[in-house]
Amino acid sequence: MTHDDDVHPAWLPDAALAPLRTRPCTVLGSGPCARTARAELGPQVPLDRATLVVATAAEPALPGLPPIPAGGYALVRDGERLLVIGDDEACALRGVYALARDLAVQALTGNEPPLTVHAPGQPLRMLDHWDNIDVHPVMGQVERGYSGGSIFYADGQVRADLGRVRDYARLLAATGINAVAINNVNVHAREARLLTDGLDDVARIAAEFRDHGIRTFLSVSFAAPVLLGGADTADPLDPAVADWWRTATDRVYAAIPDFGGYLVKADSEGQPGPFAYGRSHADGANLLAAALRPHGGTVLWRAFVYDHRQDWRDRSTDRARAAHDHFAPLDGDFAENVVLQVKHGPMDFQVREPLSSVLAAMPHTRLAIELQVTQEYTGQQRHLCYLAPAWREYLRHPLDGTHPVADTVAGVTGVSNVGDDPFWTGHPLAQANLYAFGRLAWDSTLTPERILDEWIALTFAGAGADGLRRIAAALHTMLDDSWRRYEGYTAPLGVGFMVRPGTHGHPDVDGYEYTPWGTYHFADRDGIGVDRTRSTGTGYTGQYPSPWREIYESVDTCPDELLLFFHHVPYQHVLHSGSTVIQHIYDSRADAVEQLDGVEVAWDSLRDLVGTDLPAAVDHRVRERLAEQRRSAIEWRDQIRSYFLRKSGVPDRTGRPIY
Amino acid sequence: MTHDDDVHPAWLPDAALAPLRTRPCTVLGSGPCARTARAELGPQVPLDRATLVVATAAEPALPGLPPIPAGGYALVRDGERLLVIGDDEACALRGVYALARDLAVQALTGNEPPLTVHAPGQPLRMLDHWDNIDVHPVMGQVERGYSGGSIFYADGQVRADLGRVRDYARLLAATGINAVAINNVNVHAREARLLTDGLDDVARIAAEFRDHGIRTFLSVSFAAPVLLGGADTADPLDPAVADWWRTATDRVYAAIPDFGGYLVKADSEGQPGPFAYGRSHADGANLLAAALRPHGGTVLWRAFVYDHRQDWRDRSTDRARAAHDHFAPLDGDFAENVVLQVKHGPMDFQVREPLSSVLAAMPHTRLAIELQVTQEYTGQQRHLCYLAPAWREYLRHPLDGTHPVADTVAGVTGVSNVGDDPFWTGHPLAQANLYAFGRLAWDSTLTPERILDEWIALTFAGAGADGLRRIAAALHTMLDDSWRRYEGYTAPLGVGFMVRPGTHGHPDVDGYEYTPWGTYHFADRDGIGVDRTRSTGTGYTGQYPSPWREIYESVDTCPDELLLFFHHVPYQHVLHSGSTVIQHIYDSRADAVEQLDGVEVAWDSLRDLVGTDLPAAVDHRVRERLAEQRRSAIEWRDQIRSYFLRKSGVPDRTGRPIY
Repeated sequence: MTHDDDVHPAWLPDAALAPLRTRPCTVLGSGPCARTARAELGPQVPLDRATLVVATAAEPALPGLPPIPAGGYALVRDGERLLVIGDDEACALRGVYALARDLAVQALTGNEPPLTVHAPGQPLRMLDHWDNIDVHPVMGQVERGYSGGSIFYADGQVRADLGRVRDYARLLAATGINAVAINNVNVHAREARLLTDGLDDVARIAAEFRDHGIRTFLSVSFAAPVLLGGADTADPLDPAVADWWRTATDRVYAAIPDFGGYLVKADSEGQPGPFAYGRSHADGANLLAAALRPHGGTVLWRAFVYDHRQDWRDRSTDRARAAHDHFAPLDGDFAENVVLQVKHGPMDFQVREPLSSVLAAMPHTRLAIELQVTQEYTGQQRHLCYLAPAWREYLRHPLDGTHPVADTVAGVTGVSNVGDDPFWTGHPLAQANLYAFGRLAWDSTLTPERILDEWIALTFAGAGADGLRRIAAALHTMLDDSWRRYEGYTAPLGVGFMVRPGTHGHPDVDGYEYTPWGTYHFADRDGIGVDRTRSTGTGYTGQYPSPWREIYESVDTCPDELLLFFHHVPYQHVLHSGSTVIQHIYDSRADAVEQLDGVEVAWDSLRDLVGTDLPAAVDHRVRERLAEQRRSAIEWRDQIRSYFLRKSGVPDRTGRPIY
Repeated sequence: MTHDDDVHPAWLPDAALAPLRTRPCTVLGSGPCARTARAELGPQVPLDRATLVVATAAEPALPGLPPIPAGGYALVRDGERLLVIGDDEACALRGVYALARDLAVQALTGNEPPLTVHAPGQPLRMLDHWDNIDVHPVMGQVERGYSGGSIFYADGQVRADLGRVRDYARLLAATGINAVAINNVNVHAREARLLTDGLDDVARIAAEFRDHGIRTFLSVSFAAPVLLGGADTADPLDPAVADWWRTATDRVYAAIPDFGGYLVKADSEGQPGPFAYGRSHADGANLLAAALRPHGGTVLWRAFVYDHRQDWRDRSTDRARAAHDHFAPLDGDFAENVVLQVKHGPMDFQVREPLSSVLAAMPHTRLAIELQVTQEYTGQQRHLCYLAPAWREYLRHPLDGTHPVADTVAGVTGVSNVGDDPFWTGHPLAQANLYAFGRLAWDSTLTPERILDEWIALTFAGAGADGLRRIAAALHTMLDDSWRRYEGYTAPLGVGFMVRPGTHGHPDVDGYEYTPWGTYHFADRDGIGVDRTRSTGTGYTGQYPSPWREIYESVDTCPDELLLFFHHVPYQHVLHSGSTVIQHIYDSRADAVEQLDGVEVAWDSLRDLVGTDLPAAVDHRVRERLAEQRRSAIEWRDQIRSYFLRKSGVPDRTGRPIY
């Protein structure tokens, strides 16, 4: 099924589909997803001879089917027959991939496929692409991309051959993703024109996604009426501006009837927005919502708004407060087809942050939580960092005091980690993050270990039984704790941002300390951390509901891993773990690097499988990345240990060398 | 005379030449520089009616002329006639501009032109251009350029219209410059081909410089035989490689008979060189020298060779030692037409460094001292930083214990600060640096104040007498101490490199501290500085001759301004000035910023001259830069004061605020 033999099939190799393809099969239905399912499953037989039947719940040829929840599917045994029944044809296609997955897991664990009803946790499960058409002089083609160029664009235009987009859509369909934004939220001049001159090309991309049950979104510039329409204002309350958006949107839907909607980064890091006209973000979002509403489209409006020209000398301004300060007062003002897209943390995708208080502050607004699959601050696909444990923590967190976040949001969005790299994601094992994102967006109760089993069972479906079990054991050793390990050798205790400005990939403890970006650690010779308490600090703790406002307010109850996010403490402060802050900084870095031995041993243990159960190209790339991870982790360890010894003067109790 | 009305005439406005053009004049001679002098001076009269005569010393029509030193000229009074006599026609042209200069200074100071013989301090007075043809993705078109694009190249090729190159050549001729390298020492693929496919274009550029007595050089890649010739080696001892260079060089001279030679950055920061073949830098330089010798050409071989992938954890490696370690053992091994080009300091153009010990270590080698006119580390033409006081200090320094450096070197080279900006140099007042560079290369005994008077008198020759005097007073206030002022608010006491990696223009105290570049300050909570002594440090002091090795070795005799370059001392160490290191850091930054008040007041005092004696465009640009200088200087002050308070814990005795 894959488009190009040189491209790794990720979690859908032929071997993963083979157990389905051996069954006499019938796919009922005539839409694009039914056609895709037929192409996936192979030659069709008459219904009465099929032992695998794929259909929608409304299929007249199959009376008496169970009710299917909205957007869901069921796997049903009917005597010798297996039925895959979807709420619609797109859901049925997802069910086909789910069955393949459950059969693959059976080959690994021996567990029978659970034949039951599946419903999505959220209606919107979306990937955002920060892809540019023109290569940006600083950010490259894919902003914060670590997997080569864009799969959508090359040579200044939409690719003529969209084979990889089709392969990508197929991979996403198998995880449950149902929406994709195909261009960067920082909308540059060339990309802005996708909305108008580029519609034919967008329609070609949308067709590939449509065949896999995925709706296409565009990132648009709030200034589009000026940039593209030649108007002299983009004021959201100006009727001519509303007209422009209505007309432009009508044209989009004429070309793409199932277009998803617009994604907007407004008044953020230099992007235009409603503030220029003295209007609120609700005014801005509702303008686009009105244009989309007749067509059933949605506005994804990002809450990532803060002052990126802050004065580091002013300790009273706190970037962590910004999204809440801007948006919480607007709760209830947004149109129904607006979804406010909120980054999971109040800062910016650090390896450890508390959840954004905004996620519990706007009960009358549809929210989406935004995650980052691309590893901007978590190792840039050179380091192993399996993010499912982090994401699950966020999604299951009872931020409002009662309900898991996943149960209160309307959507989960993530920034894709995919490019035109032969392994899709640079590091072959970073595929697991993309897979896990889709699965957790669908069902946040899944454990990271279970999801990893699924990914392994599918990806290595061609391996022999023994090889598969050994691969799974090795990959669990390598990935299960990789997020905490990465946290261990990088910025400590929730303090964040000890990276080189620009690249974000290299250690630089003071890199952001005296910049306008609002990202500081305030380390001096006596202590470190940001006082965000109500009593003596910026008051950010007060933006949380109980019990979190009280828990974060006190050093006695604040969790160790967030201590420096909320408090400025002396180096000799004793953590709940019993260690001091300074000794924790020393130990955790050294310990985390020592754990890499086990990671490398685990991969080495598979050496005899290379060339048979494990492709040589995968082995080669993984080894190259492991070597770079070790080099970089040691650099992190040594820089941070040296920095804090120089600053604190406190020696490492264990006597391990500090340079 | 200027090519383009929108381009500032710098120090050769029509008004500067007017006092010469009013005299009945004869220029004798038929070469390109004689033609240029005629074009400059206007209609010619018969010799017996001329009161201004320009000729060479060998002119048969003027018997009995005084002897002229090699490369020099004389201004001679002969009754009513003024004679400008050059060693050759290029020298005579320089004499014409010298006479214009002396007459302009007379208008400012009342001093009569000193009619005497002038001889150059060095035979080679050269500007290096770090210009690329293709815009480099990181470094832009002009590497470390702060004055727009290249005057030589546009749109991926040599400009069709070389009018600005001609204007530039004229400006340089008036300062005494006689050599220019027209492309970046980091030779990228496109620029490498200037040596072969691009010869016609190089010849066009060389013609403009030839008309002004300036020889053209190319930066070449040591790997050219491989890159351009398709050979599989560039080994300097391979006869086929020598053949390739001979043939290529013969072709260059066929196109440009007075071609100057090659400038080479080898085995440095990623550039190819002889080390790849196990050969020495003498082998490498002599290879090119052999090809150039038959034509009278010269190799400029850069001594800027060091390990830019150093491990910051290893305190025994010292980049300051590198050039000496590499080159001093080769003294006497270089061919006669090789000039070893040595940066003035052992590091890299910092605002304060000691002189490079290499400049006193190679008595049997022709050396050139390399200065940086472009203000990479000295304010990037946004800050005022008149560099003549620094350069004069370097050139007059008795590094060998007896002779000023200027008297021991064969050449002075500088990295140009010019681009296609309408003011040539971004900051209009940065023109003074370009002018001063040429003048000090010619005569290092000139005082910075005298040179500034010259530049002012020429540049503002169109102003009225009172206006001119007021402008001069203001500019001396602004520029005379600007280098020490810039030093005052940036990295203290010779420690260097507290800048953002990449841009080099923004303060970042730890920016280079944990990098592979060998540029560290080792500040911890107790002290700061690099121990480069023989007794306890890296031993760099031992590379100096007496008395400097002893002077720099001891904290008691080491000059304050170089203390942290040579010593690691506690913050409470008492300087010769009586202050402590930490209090000096606090005070000098605050004092230097306070001095900017006087700078701004001085410029403001000229407000009533704007539009008459002072062009409005100059005023506008200067004001814009002064505002940015203040903003940036405050940022430097506050970052460095905060950094050292946080680290040392010692309060500022004066109580001035630290953030």
